[in-house]
Amino acid sequence: MQHPHPYLTTRSHGFLPSPVRDVWEASMQPGVISLAGGNPDLSLAPLDWLADASSRLIRDRGHEVLQYSSGTGTTELRESIVELMAAEHIHADVAGIQVTAGSQMALDVVTKLLCEQGDTILVEDPTYVGALGIFGGAGLRVEHVPMDADGLVPEALRERIRHLAAQGRRPRMLYTIPNFQNPRGVTLAESRRPEIVEICRAAGIPIVEDNPYGMLAFEPRQLTSLHELDPENVVYLGSFSKVLAPGLRVGWATAPEWMRRPLQLASESTVICASPLSQALAADYIAHHDFRSIISRATAVYAKRAAALIGALEGRLPEGSTLTHPQGGFFSWVTLPEGWTTAELLDAAIYEKVVFVPGASFCAPGEGQRELRLAFSFESPDRLTEGARRLGLAFERTAASIAA
Amino acid sequence: MQHPHPYLTTRSHGFLPSPVRDVWEASMQPGVISLAGGNPDLSLAPLDWLADASSRLIRDRGHEVLQYSSGTGTTELRESIVELMAAEHIHADVAGIQVTAGSQMALDVVTKLLCEQGDTILVEDPTYVGALGIFGGAGLRVEHVPMDADGLVPEALRERIRHLAAQGRRPRMLYTIPNFQNPRGVTLAESRRPEIVEICRAAGIPIVEDNPYGMLAFEPRQLTSLHELDPENVVYLGSFSKVLAPGLRVGWATAPEWMRRPLQLASESTVICASPLSQALAADYIAHHDFRSIISRATAVYAKRAAALIGALEGRLPEGSTLTHPQGGFFSWVTLPEGWTTAELLDAAIYEKVVFVPGASFCAPGEGQRELRLAFSFESPDRLTEGARRLGLAFERTAASIAA
Repeated sequence: MQHPHPYLTTRSHGFLPSPVRDVWEASMQPGVISLAGGNPDLSLAPLDWLADASSRLIRDRGHEVLQYSSGTGTTELRESIVELMAAEHIHADVAGIQVTAGSQMALDVVTKLLCEQGDTILVEDPTYVGALGIFGGAGLRVEHVPMDADGLVPEALRERIRHLAAQGRRPRMLYTIPNFQNPRGVTLAESRRPEIVEICRAAGIPIVEDNPYGMLAFEPRQLTSLHELDPENVVYLGSFSKVLAPGLRVGWATAPEWMRRPLQLASESTVICASPLSQALAADYIAHHDFRSIISRATAVYAKRAAALIGALEGRLPEGSTLTHPQGGFFSWVTLPEGWTTAELLDAAIYEKVVFVPGASFCAPGEGQRELRLAFSFESPDRLTEGARRLGLAFERTAASIAA
Repeated sequence: MQHPHPYLTTRSHGFLPSPVRDVWEASMQPGVISLAGGNPDLSLAPLDWLADASSRLIRDRGHEVLQYSSGTGTTELRESIVELMAAEHIHADVAGIQVTAGSQMALDVVTKLLCEQGDTILVEDPTYVGALGIFGGAGLRVEHVPMDADGLVPEALRERIRHLAAQGRRPRMLYTIPNFQNPRGVTLAESRRPEIVEICRAAGIPIVEDNPYGMLAFEPRQLTSLHELDPENVVYLGSFSKVLAPGLRVGWATAPEWMRRPLQLASESTVICASPLSQALAADYIAHHDFRSIISRATAVYAKRAAALIGALEGRLPEGSTLTHPQGGFFSWVTLPEGWTTAELLDAAIYEKVVFVPGASFCAPGEGQRELRLAFSFESPDRLTEGARRLGLAFERTAASIAA
């Protein structure tokens, strides 16, 4: 291990490598089926339209879409975002929307506003690894709160806040992905939502609600936004990455009134503005396209893929395993029985030409050793079925080595 | 003044409003000539080519340029950046280049790696206001080091480092814009460059060299990069904003070996990746276009504008004023005699239908009260001449009020 350079800050060592990149090389070998990366399938996106729209926008409005632009985001995009959120039954004000270069950046900026080095924050166990990278690089103390099949457990949240308070630590925020969570694939039960919101409000803890997958529900259902329940205590993060294209790098935060001005200034300081060309493309897509149909067609495809993967895994998982049956989004999550470790399993899986992301990256240090994330968003049902078969072989191979 | 919300961190109050936006409303009034914003003139950019290239790239490579991409930046763009830097006589390695969503983000990320809250850093007096926003939001103590017509003054730098050392403070970095500086328009003398580099190396202070304007020299000249002089102690920041289009939001850092891995992880944590569509456009521009000719044609236009503005200001400035004669870039800087303040002058200027950016935003708190930044990049020579005439009227009006 190389010694870190003395110029580097302590917190700089908290930025985390991507676990998807860790298995990237293996996943790019010929014939390998990847259940690792959570990429949307762009064959479901309106690429031809995007091609035409980009040249049209540059030709007609090049002096605007290729110039510096508003630090808050263009008004046309913010209006489109209100419409997109309305399709998810969430009410938002144009004035409350801050456009960012992807929702990753929105989380980075919100973290700058709410947390200082050494502060404690709450996250789900497991949680999005990209969020853990931000928090690590900000030098935060991250407390993972248990989830179950219905998402974050209110009693566990209450208990953790109490426990921390006894140590004189007030968490500076709760970071949560209520819908079709990454990596676990679970969704916070409707009945728990007002309770989670109330616990945090009472404890003086703002909530950061990250909702990249909310539009991708396999069956129509009501998913109440936490932001909707408590607009003054919840910052909502949204993204075009899963409903249009990640390469645009456009996301947003919908912020309480008290956060809007600092959010704008912090966003400007971070990237000046999100690409106005990307903003114009995203705005045009919402305003002049039947985005609801495109998204629901894509969601139907993802639903079939989820069913293919999960169906094919049945009977192949080691006895005593649990598996999330997601009702939307991109991911399922497997917990293997005691005694298993994904490190060994991953070697066997790569041998069988299938890759996944080991669970540890999403969990508290030392945890998640016998858990794995499986993404079904990118491969065809046939490939997913074959991937599950290969994973079955990897389980057998690993079981034999555990028994030995 | 509104009380800040108790959830907001101390450092969140350090993010600064844009002084350009402060005069934005005035600058958008009909008939107003703006010497405020430092925007490139996109009529000098290859917009038709960008329009065609964007649709071609999405059509031919949509699954790549609209998907998530490498956190370091694409190899093709990093190779193009090496070529672009070579045109400026700077040697760079592909391995050392980290692509970011504009060089603003590169500075944000480098700051995360080098500085913790409460740390001291060195900047030029005056300096780029967007950098001050990053440093304020990081909770840094900013020390402004004097410049003269030849840029940063080595003896002043040495003295300041000594002075801080006596207080037990070691600066964590020197942030400098050696070429056609924003806002002052001066260029660091060649003879000073090795000295500045040596002072910082000896004091254990890494240098962040920000070079958005280096390609925009009005006459061919040798500008030695500080990074070239000491690659292991200087991080170089580059940008496509002034040589292609700001709306792409593509910049980069060329980093010493010891910083590369943390820079990649911190960049990924901030935005995952810069827009791969924008990256592909920038790469294509360098690889398949005569970018040197386009940039040198644009530079010739900027040179004429600088000459128009400065020529027209002659004889109109209050006696005892000084004015930078820039040899490249976008800006000139006026220092008014004792007794003047730009606050009063700005009111008079807006009355005369011309706007500028008051100097205070670029300086240490309380400083820069009788200084102003004039941008010549965006208006035509005729408009600049008329702007100078109006500024002359504003000077007269303000002089009368000072005398009164």
